[in-house]
Amino acid sequence: MDLPESLNKVVKHLKRLPGIGEKSAIRQSLVIAKWDSSDLIDFASAIDSLKKLKKCQECGIYSDQELCEICRNPHRKDSGVICVVESITDCLAIERGHQFLGRYFILNGVLNPLLGVTPDDLQIGKLISIIKKYEIKEVILAVNPSVEGDATCSYIKDVVPKEIVVERIGLGIPVGGSLEYLDGATILKAIENRRKF
Amino acid sequence: MDLPESLNKVVKHLKRLPGIGEKSAIRQSLVIAKWDSSDLIDFASAIDSLKKLKKCQECGIYSDQELCEICRNPHRKDSGVICVVESITDCLAIERGHQFLGRYFILNGVLNPLLGVTPDDLQIGKLISIIKKYEIKEVILAVNPSVEGDATCSYIKDVVPKEIVVERIGLGIPVGGSLEYLDGATILKAIENRRKF
Repeated sequence: MDLPESLNKVVKHLKRLPGIGEKSAIRQSLVIAKWDSSDLIDFASAIDSLKKLKKCQECGIYSDQELCEICRNPHRKDSGVICVVESITDCLAIERGHQFLGRYFILNGVLNPLLGVTPDDLQIGKLISIIKKYEIKEVILAVNPSVEGDATCSYIKDVVPKEIVVERIGLGIPVGGSLEYLDGATILKAIENRRKF
Repeated sequence: MDLPESLNKVVKHLKRLPGIGEKSAIRQSLVIAKWDSSDLIDFASAIDSLKKLKKCQECGIYSDQELCEICRNPHRKDSGVICVVESITDCLAIERGHQFLGRYFILNGVLNPLLGVTPDDLQIGKLISIIKKYEIKEVILAVNPSVEGDATCSYIKDVVPKEIVVERIGLGIPVGGSLEYLDGATILKAIENRRKF
């Protein structure tokens, strides 16, 4: 049995989203089909308006304006600290903690010679110019631990002016984690990164 | 940090879908934001067009026309067998097997006095008139096993004309299932429903 064309189209698009397979997409499209007309119009226009979505000229976070809320905030703008992350979702994860009060720089990926991702693709030149422009004193590399992530961190450390402190976020066992269930590499890093108690 | 309004709206709608929480919705909206304009327009218009989606006048499956593909198919229409299911997703699950060749009737729920779901809400009167109109000889109740599902099956059995065979799909252990991990009620039903081997 074939579903109507409009439902099939919604299924096709939902299936492209992370974590949504064929069955979930069908189930979800049938839920959407039950919504009121007004909700359907609102959802459709919200998706349509993503065409006009801009990115902050400095950090790369999605924004309604030229500069995002964080890059406009004088306290954060001139904090002298920049946190380098792989993606906007990583930035949002840090923001959920409400502890970090510096600015961000979104790499939109990590160096990967096999896939042809170069320092230019990550706009590392722009990162350096922002570091100089805002007199950044501390660069926090919040790049995920992986072979490519490690290489990206090493590269950034090399090209950042020598007088600037470059740090990487701590690697170790997560809060609530249990040694029993963690992989060897994490336990090794946790032991390497031990601190006086 | 606040996301732009258009992204927030997409997040708000995605969060209403089954199996999608706040974090997934944000992650997915950021994926959608990266799509080409043409895909965004296509997705938006597909959602918008769900406003005009019709349901088959006889079985209740979504359809582009007055009657769905199954109710129009002469072999299935006059098969004399009708399968009663709770939802369109249940009907699609049966269709995936390509074995059942009768017609369907979608209840859109199960009887539930506490939530005020009555036989009228499930259009059981319409089911009876379809049974008469198409000279149905066999009613297969493919309603999920639950207290409300059981009550719904009993109710339908009572109101269907006595000369018609009413059956319920088999309850027991699923293929590939393991007794070790199944609940007591399922095992009990499996033993009750044992068949000569």
